[in-house]
Amino acid sequence: MAIITLTTDFGEKDHFVGATKGAIYTELPEVKIVDISHSVSPFNVPEAAYIIQNAYRSFPKGTIHLIGIDSELNPENKHIAVKLDDHYFVCANNGIMSMICSEITPEKIVEINIHDKIATSFPVLDVFVKVACHIARGGTLEVIGKVIDTIKPIKNLIPFVNDEQTQIIGSVIYIDNYGNVITNIKRKFFESIQKTRGFEISARNYKFKEIFNKYSEAINFDIPEEKRYDDGKRMVVFNSSDYLEIAIYKSDNANVGSASTLLGLKMRDTVTVNFDKI
Amino acid sequence: MAIITLTTDFGEKDHFVGATKGAIYTELPEVKIVDISHSVSPFNVPEAAYIIQNAYRSFPKGTIHLIGIDSELNPENKHIAVKLDDHYFVCANNGIMSMICSEITPEKIVEINIHDKIATSFPVLDVFVKVACHIARGGTLEVIGKVIDTIKPIKNLIPFVNDEQTQIIGSVIYIDNYGNVITNIKRKFFESIQKTRGFEISARNYKFKEIFNKYSEAINFDIPEEKRYDDGKRMVVFNSSDYLEIAIYKSDNANVGSASTLLGLKMRDTVTVNFDKI
Amino acid sequence: MAIITLTTDFGEKDHFVGATKGAIYTELPEVKIVDISHSVSPFNVPEAAYIIQNAYRSFPKGTIHLIGIDSELNPENKHIAVKLDDHYFVCANNGIMSMICSEITPEKIVEINIHDKIATSFPVLDVFVKVACHIARGGTLEVIGKVIDTIKPIKNLIPFVNDEQTQIIGSVIYIDNYGNVITNIKRKFFESIQKTRGFEISARNYKFKEIFNKYSEAINFDIPEEKRYDDGKRMVVFNSSDYLEIAIYKSDNANVGSASTLLGLKMRDTVTVNFDKI
Repeated sequence: MAIITLTTDFGEKDHFVGATKGAIYTELPEVKIVDISHSVSPFNVPEAAYIIQNAYRSFPKGTIHLIGIDSELNPENKHIAVKLDDHYFVCANNGIMSMICSEITPEKIVEINIHDKIATSFPVLDVFVKVACHIARGGTLEVIGKVIDTIKPIKNLIPFVNDEQTQIIGSVIYIDNYGNVITNIKRKFFESIQKTRGFEISARNYKFKEIFNKYSEAINFDIPEEKRYDDGKRMVVFNSSDYLEIAIYKSDNANVGSASTLLGLKMRDTVTVNFDKI
Repeated sequence: MAIITLTTDFGEKDHFVGATKGAIYTELPEVKIVDISHSVSPFNVPEAAYIIQNAYRSFPKGTIHLIGIDSELNPENKHIAVKLDDHYFVCANNGIMSMICSEITPEKIVEINIHDKIATSFPVLDVFVKVACHIARGGTLEVIGKVIDTIKPIKNLIPFVNDEQTQIIGSVIYIDNYGNVITNIKRKFFESIQKTRGFEISARNYKFKEIFNKYSEAINFDIPEEKRYDDGKRMVVFNSSDYLEIAIYKSDNANVGSASTLLGLKMRDTVTVNFDKI
Repeated sequence: MAIITLTTDFGEKDHFVGATKGAIYTELPEVKIVDISHSVSPFNVPEAAYIIQNAYRSFPKGTIHLIGIDSELNPENKHIAVKLDDHYFVCANNGIMSMICSEITPEKIVEINIHDKIATSFPVLDVFVKVACHIARGGTLEVIGKVIDTIKPIKNLIPFVNDEQTQIIGSVIYIDNYGNVITNIKRKFFESIQKTRGFEISARNYKFKEIFNKYSEAINFDIPEEKRYDDGKRMVVFNSSDYLEIAIYKSDNANVGSASTLLGLKMRDTVTVNFDKI
């Protein structure tokens, strides 16, 4: 049976998530519903784009991803359904899909037109559930919308590179549960500019000359524990989603602090890479 | 197979929710368990009443709703099971059901009497799970309790109306994930008093003369974006559950602020509607 | 079909939980996944040990518990799978299992050796999911690791008792959603030292001479409500997991305060029991 995932900014407390699940089970008792996240910051499209991009790929082909962020229908915000990489996405056309679509070309995009006359302030329940269940039953996208060519982009998706290709200027796009700071610089992109050159990464007044593949790699386990962390456990890694990330080893926002709190890095802050002259 | 929903104040961290689910699956491997909320404020009966009222209706008939808020058995707090609107509810008799029961008459209420001698501080695990599984297997309420007539009410459920029917005095009963402020004034009730009259809604020193049906309706998309929000995006809507709600367009407690933070509205604060003289 | 539970410090927002579930369903479409907690404080092994110990027992025999806390593979942190009490546990060998193993001897422990050459910073997705699905399909532990004898302990698991057996010095190991403060003193252990003696429990400058079996037991419902709480609702209970707990009746961190906030008790603080001379 089909899987429907949910990614919303509904939070963990209100009735919205429960009501949405109830409506899905009422239509399709045998479907499997999987929560991806309901703690996206309210109306935060870039956060949602990052989360869905990095979660969807683990799911089986044919999974339907319902995304409820900033989804009220209005003249500037239409509803779409997208088929891409053999997955389906139901969401508002507000930029959420632009991060995924920048890497993989959608097979089909439709603008949903099954809305009735009545205005609704809960389109996830009243529209997205119907569309997701239609797809789960094997229905085609053309039945619930008209085909369109392009989706709405979000800003700052791609980092800036200067003409001499000696510098990348990226920005912070996500801060995770550990306070690690994730930039829009992906490994492939970085390596395509880097070639074989050395580099220095700057974030505020912190500098880094190495990028690790996992957090423990930055730690020398051959020396006694009390001497290991002379650089405050700061490091840069390509994270498990292949984004350049500034991290603190075993960080914890609430107690020891994190890359975000200790280095003072916030959403949209600049992170620069300068490559060595050859 | 039956659905059992969970609404508790157990929070997202402790073992209580996991233990409850494990106990249900041990009794009924094929049942479907759906979380409605575990983030109700501790012992906050009115919050739970609002959440369960607005979530339960989306679920299929026959669903069993287990509500674990302030559920320790004591001389003033008994356990009940309620059949209403073809749904089942298992909870303490502490007012949680009074919001639902004020609109729909229960078909049957029983006071649960399957407790053994041993005192338990985790009645959801030790009692409610047994009752819910009994109902899920098709058992009747009479087997697990004795029929009673009435349930315990909560205060301030119904707003006050003056004798001249020129004023409604309501109060704040819930603040949602977006910081929107929800009152106990329902659309039907409002319209039954309003008839065709104009009105002014007052919340602290803010006044409103219009109620919208969705958030975007308050925004004029025909004018340039920077000129749209001269009233601070404040508005009143009937929300998707038909409660009168004071909202900020695209609010976010943590960043831009919300109706609750910007207008200084808290639980139990007064919201007044004055109707025009005809 | 098998049940796989998840206990992690991934938080409620990021894509990690969703990605993990997607990977499990891709391998085993019919498995049941149950969240125990994703809100363990980052890298907090003692918290995770307490949560998993008190949740696992409610699940059916044969359940597989995947625990993702501090699980990156490094020279000091290996991956293990444990069979114990007819349940399976997949986690890092970092002390998480020591609380359960101190009470029940494991039937089998293996150090997982299916890792390929590539370093991974997301071992839950890349290793634990494979191991859990292998076990869920009926595979044996020997196939995925080599048998070992002992697991890594955590400190302060067992409270200190003086030679005269007149004093127990315990410590705070967990603070729950209600701000109740849980010590490492278990009922059986307490009673084995106490025998028939009276006692005084000290936590900071608060003293208690009685231990209740549930929260309401501390309240005298025969006197009017306003006169009931002359000791600030402070009490000591053996909680539903049989740990000695310092509690406030109907506490709430955010509003009325809790044992943690009102009594100033934190993780690792000392709680002392002095037994009467006979």
